[in-house]
Amino acid sequence: MNSRYQDCIKACLECLEACNNCFDACLNEEHVNMMTECIRLDRECADICAYAVKAMQTNSPFAQQICRLCADICESCGNECKQHDHSHCQNCAAACFRCAEKCRQIAAA
Amino acid sequence: MNSRYQDCIKACLECLEACNNCFDACLNEEHVNMMTECIRLDRECADICAYAVKAMQTNSPFAQQICRLCADICESCGNECKQHDHSHCQNCAAACFRCAEKCRQIAAA
Amino acid sequence: MNSRYQDCIKACLECLEACNNCFDACLNEEHVNMMTECIRLDRECADICAYAVKAMQTNSPFAQQICRLCADICESCGNECKQHDHSHCQNCAAACFRCAEKCRQIAAA
Amino acid sequence: MNSRYQDCIKACLECLEACNNCFDACLNEEHVNMMTECIRLDRECADICAYAVKAMQTNSPFAQQICRLCADICESCGNECKQHDHSHCQNCAAACFRCAEKCRQIAAA
Repeated sequence: MNSRYQDCIKACLECLEACNNCFDACLNEEHVNMMTECIRLDRECADICAYAVKAMQTNSPFAQQICRLCADICESCGNECKQHDHSHCQNCAAACFRCAEKCRQIAAA
Repeated sequence: MNSRYQDCIKACLECLEACNNCFDACLNEEHVNMMTECIRLDRECADICAYAVKAMQTNSPFAQQICRLCADICESCGNECKQHDHSHCQNCAAACFRCAEKCRQIAAA
Repeated sequence: MNSRYQDCIKACLECLEACNNCFDACLNEEHVNMMTECIRLDRECADICAYAVKAMQTNSPFAQQICRLCADICESCGNECKQHDHSHCQNCAAACFRCAEKCRQIAAA
Repeated sequence: MNSRYQDCIKACLECLEACNNCFDACLNEEHVNMMTECIRLDRECADICAYAVKAMQTNSPFAQQICRLCADICESCGNECKQHDHSHCQNCAAACFRCAEKCRQIAAA
């Protein structure tokens, strides 16, 4: 695997975990009707992070384009999550924004 | 691709679609707090159906074991969905039970 | 599910199947050393098609962007496959180009 | 997320990386015709590891069953990889056997 991807893979894996945790926790919240966009985006973001990780780990010729899309989805998920006070949402927002930043660096390289 | 898988692949793809539609529709329901188990299982069931399809389409040596797991998850999703009157849930339950039956046939072959 | 996606979802599912069949068949070819790019792209293309299907079936706000990426990967996979005479490669190339066309229509809508 | 899954998630993520690296490296080997089973199993194993990670991170009621299947696929992949002297195969075999062990512990809990 190309070592220039190492930081971005790490950020994607942390984002994946934060999104999956947030998905599960949102579904357990009392006011789940406030969390529906978060639940949707958590699923989508976790899945694109997994796809981006695979692309980088297999030296895909599409790694840059995939990371660009991943950054867009991460940003959208982070912007939704940061509006909610739950710690799982705040953690997820932070992980999403870090991942978006690392993905943009790969996309621009 | 082994043609004996054809019916099961079709049932998995229909189940995948029904689960993804139900996931989206549940998140738009007024009483989403009633639908949280449905939302969880829709995601899980859609994903295992996709994995089972890939296993069959690539002639995986694990196709039978994967179909057995897929059948269990489909049944669980179907049992949850059938308790809700929404047409997307009733459609999903029917697709899940059909898929479970086809997957059991592969698992037992 | 939004019905405007129907043709594109169908094209993605046919491409997914063609790519997975081609992946399996390439690995069984005598001269597998000629097929390595095909094997790589078949995996990547099958996976992005599955992701695009899910995005459309769940009415993702990213469906257009995902379809644009899917179209690029499908074209690349089609261009590789069409160079090989095996029927599984020719079938796969045709399915990839059809899918790319349908994805471009969604992306441009 | 349930903290009892922490070790198993880590082992799955390491196995996922080892499998994806091995997939890519096998396709670059001179004698790729010797590596076809490895390439197949690397893909399948990477994908089931990703699915198991998601199941654990979302507290799926199917986490144990999924880990049992994951352990079987990891063992099969490890047994194939260990027969090849390439360092990517030896690394992958080790990661697969560790992951299988951690998955069996979850399955038996």
